[in-house]
Amino acid sequence: MSEFRKNPVTGRWVIIAPERNLRPHQFGKREKFRHVGSPESCPFCPGNEKETPPEVYALRKPSTPPDSPGWEVRVVPNKYPILDRQAELRWFDRALFKRITGFGYHEVIIETTDHYKTIPEMEIEEIEKIFFTYQKRLNALRGDKRIKYVIIFKNHGEEAGASISHSHSQLLALPFVPPSVEKEIEVVKEFYLKEGNCALCLMLQEEMKGKERIVEKNEQFVAFIPFASDFPFEVWIAPRGHSSSFENLNKEGIRRLAEIYRNVLRRVDSVLERPCYNAVLHTAPFEGEHKEYFHWYLQIIPQITRIAGFEMGSGILVNVAPPEQAADFLRRAEWKK
Amino acid sequence: MSEFRKNPVTGRWVIIAPERNLRPHQFGKREKFRHVGSPESCPFCPGNEKETPPEVYALRKPSTPPDSPGWEVRVVPNKYPILDRQAELRWFDRALFKRITGFGYHEVIIETTDHYKTIPEMEIEEIEKIFFTYQKRLNALRGDKRIKYVIIFKNHGEEAGASISHSHSQLLALPFVPPSVEKEIEVVKEFYLKEGNCALCLMLQEEMKGKERIVEKNEQFVAFIPFASDFPFEVWIAPRGHSSSFENLNKEGIRRLAEIYRNVLRRVDSVLERPCYNAVLHTAPFEGEHKEYFHWYLQIIPQITRIAGFEMGSGILVNVAPPEQAADFLRRAEWKK
Repeated sequence: MSEFRKNPVTGRWVIIAPERNLRPHQFGKREKFRHVGSPESCPFCPGNEKETPPEVYALRKPSTPPDSPGWEVRVVPNKYPILDRQAELRWFDRALFKRITGFGYHEVIIETTDHYKTIPEMEIEEIEKIFFTYQKRLNALRGDKRIKYVIIFKNHGEEAGASISHSHSQLLALPFVPPSVEKEIEVVKEFYLKEGNCALCLMLQEEMKGKERIVEKNEQFVAFIPFASDFPFEVWIAPRGHSSSFENLNKEGIRRLAEIYRNVLRRVDSVLERPCYNAVLHTAPFEGEHKEYFHWYLQIIPQITRIAGFEMGSGILVNVAPPEQAADFLRRAEWKK
Repeated sequence: MSEFRKNPVTGRWVIIAPERNLRPHQFGKREKFRHVGSPESCPFCPGNEKETPPEVYALRKPSTPPDSPGWEVRVVPNKYPILDRQAELRWFDRALFKRITGFGYHEVIIETTDHYKTIPEMEIEEIEKIFFTYQKRLNALRGDKRIKYVIIFKNHGEEAGASISHSHSQLLALPFVPPSVEKEIEVVKEFYLKEGNCALCLMLQEEMKGKERIVEKNEQFVAFIPFASDFPFEVWIAPRGHSSSFENLNKEGIRRLAEIYRNVLRRVDSVLERPCYNAVLHTAPFEGEHKEYFHWYLQIIPQITRIAGFEMGSGILVNVAPPEQAADFLRRAEWKK
């Protein structure tokens, strides 16, 4: 039996429509992640630093010059940016044809020097450095007062929208808070005013009691599949204690996050046979009064579902993997620590 | 230069991020529409009527019995429905875990008896019968007071979500007005209260003056690419005179709609080399005070774009085909009438 479910954090409705005899390999139909190109031709590989725009940040060995080897994580402007940091920010507020110039930052976070290494294959220290770099860029871009929101995301594999397979994330800094984030703030604020608590805090408490949608937890984080998840095998990783901003995560927290992130991705790789996936960091906007009710989380979405006519017209996604079953598959996944 | 644009009907922001030297064949990378199976094995072909659940409606020759050959357009419940018309409709309004039983109708409208005929290859009379059938089903489902909205859509080709290639549409009847439609009503209502006119009426007037985003028009309809279209080569077909409900379209109107729909699809097939596509009918909910400001339209979306991390996290789509250029390509398309 299918049902409509509403996510109390995103405010979105989804139809959970179980396919009979759910077996994870049914979801393996879409193209898998595969490595493309070679270190020689890859613009993200050491030695090819001149193939990207000059770096804006890098974790690198002392006394190595910018845009040369010696780095561990490297941040560069996207060579084909969809927003332009040199554009003048202007708003044209006509009723029918509202528009804003394409001002913003579009950066690439190159996560490793190794062309072939994916996150599940990294050492914890390597993953910590990626998250540390996210924080660095968030804090740097906070300095540009025209920027209202920074979204950090990862497209892993061609089906997930990545044209380059060398492990990387992207960052888009926007002159306004984007609609999904705005909606989410509105929804959790309303919840807070009505229920007197942060929706995600309560959700984590309930999930930890019930356990059926929990994938894994450690001292600081819970990984779970939301009751009303939009996509099959979509996992949220959230801090157990209330916190609105990923930027505030301390060194110890980053380590715990790196551990659970790698574990979840190993489970996903095992159950879905190395799928392409997207990951999105949901953190609070730089400004505004939402510290009490916005709770940050990292969302991982294996690329399984196609958006078709119904979803486009209704705004309701159809998820054919009941969260309870999907979480069970991920919990029982065979993978090596 | 890219820019943010806001659609005054949907209320959605999009980033128009032109790829340099736009050429339509760049968009031809994704899998094309192709025929699958054969008339012998196809559940939608005449002679195989027993392979579907019993028909709920058919345009058929007098004195031919249901579920046998003799039909021209045939409507059957989906064999693998995502909603169940026999389910009891119940709402569970818990703060964290809101849900509704999966009550609703999920039907398939088989558009032709010919396994291989696509809409651009049909006679106008055949297409008229499809739209007439849409109206029939909308009016029939209006009789079930539990149903608040009916969404009719078409997934054409595997990449667009269709597992069967025999030409068909689908219908989902829902116990509530879905979020996208609700949002749209809110947006056009606000526009109406502020500007004193229907947003789409004004938009059509402006577009017909400027012409750059017009694809084609006839006495009753305009086909155009919206200023802030979510997807490359996304075409809207809207009645020139204000009308909230597709169901009210008369015989003459249906003919004009069939003509422009076929022409637009022929243009799309020519420019994008027979892509997979989705089509969605946006008509007003059965109940509510929105006659003055809701203006129905038919949306056609070639399957070109992948939804990736940024779109998932922000709710902003990135459209790499400027509407002005895409409309120009469609206007100049070579195709035979």
